[in-house]
Amino acid sequence: MLTLIPRTDFDRVRSRSGGDDLLAVLADMCRANALTAVKRAGSGHLGSSFSALDLVVHLLLAELNVAQVGWDDPNRDVFFSSKGHDVPGLYAALHALGVIPTERLLRLRRLGGLDGHPDVGVPGIEANSGSLGMGISKGRGIAWAKRFLDRGGRVVVMVGDGELQEGQNFEALQAAVHQEVGRLWVIVDRNELQSDRPTEEILALGGLTDKLAAFGWLVESCDGHDHAELRRVFEKFRADPGVPCALVARTIKGKGVSFMEHPRALADGAGTYRWHAGAPGDEDFARAHAEIVERVDARLAELGLDPLRLEPVPALDESPAVSLQGEPESGAGAPAVRPTVTDEYVAQAYGEALLELAETHAELVVLDGDLASDCRVRAFELSHPARFIENGIAEQDMVSMAGGLARHGLLPVVNSFASFLASRANEQIYNNASERSRIIYALHYAGLIPAGPGKSHQSLRDISLLGALPNCVVVQPGNAEETRALVRWAVAESTENVAIRLAIGPSPRRLELPAGWRLERGRGTTLAAGDSAVLFAYGPVMLHEALVAAETLRAAGTRLTVIDLPWLNRIDRDWLADAVAAHGDVFVLEDHAPVGGLGDALRRELAEAGLADGRSLTVFGVDGWPACGTPVEALRFHRLDGGSIAQRIAERLGVRSVT
Amino acid sequence: MLTLIPRTDFDRVRSRSGGDDLLAVLADMCRANALTAVKRAGSGHLGSSFSALDLVVHLLLAELNVAQVGWDDPNRDVFFSSKGHDVPGLYAALHALGVIPTERLLRLRRLGGLDGHPDVGVPGIEANSGSLGMGISKGRGIAWAKRFLDRGGRVVVMVGDGELQEGQNFEALQAAVHQEVGRLWVIVDRNELQSDRPTEEILALGGLTDKLAAFGWLVESCDGHDHAELRRVFEKFRADPGVPCALVARTIKGKGVSFMEHPRALADGAGTYRWHAGAPGDEDFARAHAEIVERVDARLAELGLDPLRLEPVPALDESPAVSLQGEPESGAGAPAVRPTVTDEYVAQAYGEALLELAETHAELVVLDGDLASDCRVRAFELSHPARFIENGIAEQDMVSMAGGLARHGLLPVVNSFASFLASRANEQIYNNASERSRIIYALHYAGLIPAGPGKSHQSLRDISLLGALPNCVVVQPGNAEETRALVRWAVAESTENVAIRLAIGPSPRRLELPAGWRLERGRGTTLAAGDSAVLFAYGPVMLHEALVAAETLRAAGTRLTVIDLPWLNRIDRDWLADAVAAHGDVFVLEDHAPVGGLGDALRRELAEAGLADGRSLTVFGVDGWPACGTPVEALRFHRLDGGSIAQRIAERLGVRSVT
Repeated sequence: MLTLIPRTDFDRVRSRSGGDDLLAVLADMCRANALTAVKRAGSGHLGSSFSALDLVVHLLLAELNVAQVGWDDPNRDVFFSSKGHDVPGLYAALHALGVIPTERLLRLRRLGGLDGHPDVGVPGIEANSGSLGMGISKGRGIAWAKRFLDRGGRVVVMVGDGELQEGQNFEALQAAVHQEVGRLWVIVDRNELQSDRPTEEILALGGLTDKLAAFGWLVESCDGHDHAELRRVFEKFRADPGVPCALVARTIKGKGVSFMEHPRALADGAGTYRWHAGAPGDEDFARAHAEIVERVDARLAELGLDPLRLEPVPALDESPAVSLQGEPESGAGAPAVRPTVTDEYVAQAYGEALLELAETHAELVVLDGDLASDCRVRAFELSHPARFIENGIAEQDMVSMAGGLARHGLLPVVNSFASFLASRANEQIYNNASERSRIIYALHYAGLIPAGPGKSHQSLRDISLLGALPNCVVVQPGNAEETRALVRWAVAESTENVAIRLAIGPSPRRLELPAGWRLERGRGTTLAAGDSAVLFAYGPVMLHEALVAAETLRAAGTRLTVIDLPWLNRIDRDWLADAVAAHGDVFVLEDHAPVGGLGDALRRELAEAGLADGRSLTVFGVDGWPACGTPVEALRFHRLDGGSIAQRIAERLGVRSVT
Repeated sequence: MLTLIPRTDFDRVRSRSGGDDLLAVLADMCRANALTAVKRAGSGHLGSSFSALDLVVHLLLAELNVAQVGWDDPNRDVFFSSKGHDVPGLYAALHALGVIPTERLLRLRRLGGLDGHPDVGVPGIEANSGSLGMGISKGRGIAWAKRFLDRGGRVVVMVGDGELQEGQNFEALQAAVHQEVGRLWVIVDRNELQSDRPTEEILALGGLTDKLAAFGWLVESCDGHDHAELRRVFEKFRADPGVPCALVARTIKGKGVSFMEHPRALADGAGTYRWHAGAPGDEDFARAHAEIVERVDARLAELGLDPLRLEPVPALDESPAVSLQGEPESGAGAPAVRPTVTDEYVAQAYGEALLELAETHAELVVLDGDLASDCRVRAFELSHPARFIENGIAEQDMVSMAGGLARHGLLPVVNSFASFLASRANEQIYNNASERSRIIYALHYAGLIPAGPGKSHQSLRDISLLGALPNCVVVQPGNAEETRALVRWAVAESTENVAIRLAIGPSPRRLELPAGWRLERGRGTTLAAGDSAVLFAYGPVMLHEALVAAETLRAAGTRLTVIDLPWLNRIDRDWLADAVAAHGDVFVLEDHAPVGGLGDALRRELAEAGLADGRSLTVFGVDGWPACGTPVEALRFHRLDGGSIAQRIAERLGVRSVT
């Protein structure tokens, strides 16, 4: 049974006069509630929620005016986190302040609940974040607007220390000084760890305070869990409103739960920190929660207050039919992953294929942007440390470095999440491509699912972002076998750059390819045969939904051909002519926006091949902003689950509707 | 009559034993030839070619091994310029070394000649550059590859000082130290000016050497025109091969021509430096060239050498029919612009519209990334300094700052070249859009023309880069009137973000809109009526070519309807049904790649509206990498000039061919 500390308990503690001691207790109470919310969601970032919570609570409850004047007041102090994945902690604090109701806190990462990363649609959230490095720029914009509009209030931006590897931060730092934007504070949550390893190991920040000072900021440093220290620093900042101020707050990742605190947890994990993301298992959860509650109760007793009145949390309204269960996230040890077909992780097959190809391709080198575990290249790193390049959270630098490697005879394989790699490093990818060298871009985490992290992490534009490059093939494999074949092709055969989209989760079903199957450029594979219409799809998530749709329709007498087409912008015309020959109705199921994906490519090909006449082509894609929620919630929201697809196809064909 | 210093003169001077004095003479000789090449091309960057030339000549002739071992040797020292627009100077040096033949030097910015920015297809060019901030990352990749492959040679990357505003530089600096990449040198051409104003005015770099040192580099500083000093610094760097080294070379922009040297030129221009880009007029050219040649001859005499033997340069093979003549580039004073219809600059109309709207829209603020003159917002800056934000060369920061402004009640209008803004800041645009605030992105320099600067500046993917955003309208006006109407609509009416593509040059013809014309969302305007087929186009360049095509076809009896459709991803379905009602053959002329532009949008709309059946749709777009050359050369190369379009349409329609 999960429990939550009710808002009334926060009010009770806050109403007790008292200073820094109370803030520490309140931060701990928020830790307990963030832990419950993440446990219930099944994922979320505890490590940095906990490292940041003393700062968050101190700011919102003791330093800033926003809890008093409200989040609509133009003169409010603005606070947000640029890294954003610490948002469970912030949600807990906003819940403590009555800004976020209990029922919503309990719907973390669920449809209509709280997004996995900050979204301004949620009360109290001042900026969308989650993709790193944009916050100081954005905060400066807000501070500039306040000055221009003659409004009161400061702007406080929390950044992670790993996040400072992103170059945009330094653009923002220099501009703030040049533009003389005051009332802008940056607080570095210096917890010394990035996703699962120490910052100094991934990409050392060097003398951080010196660096910030070299950019002209007023820099202070203190213990980020010591409220007296924080008070002292903020007083100093307040006295100097004309200069942008930075606090390097030394914190402990996982602070407040002994076995999650990073020095110990890092030792336990033999150098890998396992509490960056993901919900703890039942036992770990119980230990962690009990530890926090006991400490809070002990402090309350010292203050002469009653112990906490924990309220039981209602049971989760589990979705009845989970298409894709797992939602792994950063961290090798991320628990709560319940794979459906574990040996059908395409990401895993990708990592294994690279390892295998390394033996025969001495020119192959692997680049990583602090996501080695998620991108399944940790094994490569361990086996081939001399051929593995860790670049930290700096996608642009990583891509341009790959350009230099490629020009001098190496074959770089560049890894990051699709949303960051295809978008943030887009011009660098273009620049490399214009040198006509050859690079493989592995776009992990592509598509709608997992939908829990929210729109900063859901990549639904990447095909469109790379599709107009003259020499870049975009592909997405549907199962492990196809993954291995595509990676092999990309390394050994392709004459162009290859962008390979990879679903990060386990596959919802094992896709069987025909016996003797082999990969052919531009050609797909029929997974189900029928004469009513043809449905093209790609990737494990949507191929599963396509097959569910075919199975559903078949029960109503409509027989759908389902084709797995992993080639998203290079389609063999002869093959296509055969594939559509028997069909007047062509459907495309995109794990992408309806614009710029496979649907557009097919429409183009059909038209140019003279195959368009007398054929309808209908695209089902992710319309609008991708929904945040469980896989089922997100698929249903966009009407892209198998049942909805069946219904939409039946409507289009004018055949008997399916239930 | 233009003249060139022949290679034999360089050999003669180089064969004379002598040290630093000779290097200064050789640099001056390269200045004279770069000046001639730029004058002949009609555009190019002289200011930074001249500031960098002592460095370039010193490196290639005295310090690096590459001129001895050759540009194919794997153990060569690698040198390239990250800023890249100083490439006329480098070309002159490569010509002096016999790497680039004379006839090619004389084809600067011409098809099959030398690209306006570096391209590895040109002998001696080691990296594509021109879009700023990628060089240190790329150089690090090369140095890493050399170490990994056990090859000899150093890597030397030249960067501009203004260029250091790009955050990617700082990503690269920190990674070089962390990855312990030695044999990597960065030379900052610290000429203190960016496009046309002082770096300290646009966005101060602060204590540059301190900054670089704070990132862990070995930093030196010296006079970048003093060869003895350079020798001393490079000796020191050579002694320390394990550490990345940076030289801040203090240089003078325009060095070598008294009236182009920046302290004087800046005073002459009342704070604006006019020799950043563009070729000088005839008189200025003659003065500049004579000054250099006289100084060289005097030095040669001192050295006991004969004077220069200037060779006359053959006359320019002017293209017979220039569709679009002007190729303006950075710099208010850029000469050699020969506009066809000067009052039909869409960029100019854009700037004027902003000024006008500023009166009635107090929330409107303008952001610039060091391109205020080109983007025609200098007048806004002067009229409304408090509403103008200069962000320097840091597009990501600029866009995220705009996000903060927009969230707090302002309407930011963000300006840069399309290739930089839509691509480099793509993820920041996505992040802002996800906050459902409203921002206008002005994508200057969009499309194929001007084609002289080369692919780093030609933006042919921007529609595809923004088209899949759920809430971003992409438009491109065809003339000044449409520009004013679209800007007004974007500011006062649109509920979505607006990306407005703008051609930077003068219009090749005045496009007449019907009397009483008014802008209607999603609807185009018929510019020529005919019953043979319909051709959709947008923007001044392609609308002109479309009309030329119609005029050409008409002579052969084929009557084309030409429709100006400025809405590139929002098309009114009812209007479209009318527009194509009489036509079975639909053509689209893209100022964009054939993928992801208006053609795809029209195909989508026709299909979804049930208008596709029995209709062919043919897209003419910029296939492959955009050609570098004059407007006519580039248009012809891609078969997108009016004549070629007429021929392609005639072929498609099976009508009498046109000449």
